[in-house]
Amino acid sequence: MVIDDPAVKAEVEAAFRAYEAALTGNDVPVLEALFHDDPRTIRYGAGENLYGMEAIRAFRRARAPAGLMRALQDTVITTYGRDLATAMTLFTRDNAPGKVGRQSQTWVRFPEGWRVVAAHVSVIDAP
Amino acid sequence: MVIDDPAVKAEVEAAFRAYEAALTGNDVPVLEALFHDDPRTIRYGAGENLYGMEAIRAFRRARAPAGLMRALQDTVITTYGRDLATAMTLFTRDNAPGKVGRQSQTWVRFPEGWRVVAAHVSVIDAP
Repeated sequence: MVIDDPAVKAEVEAAFRAYEAALTGNDVPVLEALFHDDPRTIRYGAGENLYGMEAIRAFRRARAPAGLMRALQDTVITTYGRDLATAMTLFTRDNAPGKVGRQSQTWVRFPEGWRVVAAHVSVIDAP
Repeated sequence: MVIDDPAVKAEVEAAFRAYEAALTGNDVPVLEALFHDDPRTIRYGAGENLYGMEAIRAFRRARAPAGLMRALQDTVITTYGRDLATAMTLFTRDNAPGKVGRQSQTWVRFPEGWRVVAAHVSVIDAP
């Protein structure tokens, strides 16, 4: 298994950037499109546990669109073979001083493109 | 890509159970063996961000071995193809009433066996 094949990694980096732009811009259709539309897709959010794409969609559509801008740091995307990647990043927000967020995503390549199948977001006191 | 092939899923379930037994028993050698020994392996813990197996090892070896027992709930393991799985679970501990933990892991099959390449643990107020 090739880890971090440059061509595969470039694909996932592009998907990750598209996701980040959609998140901070609250572009809900793009956010939804980048998650695998399946009952097995799971997202643990900062304050909620969402099992299945229906629950994820309902949460996104109800979310307040303010205060989403954030700065990423220590972002690491790693690809395993041609069809799997993990994307791990820390983030900070101006409206949450002293806190650091962590976002982890598992991306899988489907015939329709790269999709997040599992995600986890949490916020802790900055170390 | 076959999702949740029964044979593949059984393998990952066994690895997941071995990890859980090692975690609650603080069996550090087994915990370390089940993570991919690589600088790209990342673990976001309940209160720390560990980049690379060296940092993960140092944390495990320094950890207090008390109060680790926990009850799992809503555990979902999903396999994608033959070499990738996600394991998502909630957990509660008697010593943390009103809180719910979330643990997400990405497992990859290597020649030496299934290994965690990325993990994220966080604790929030129970919804």
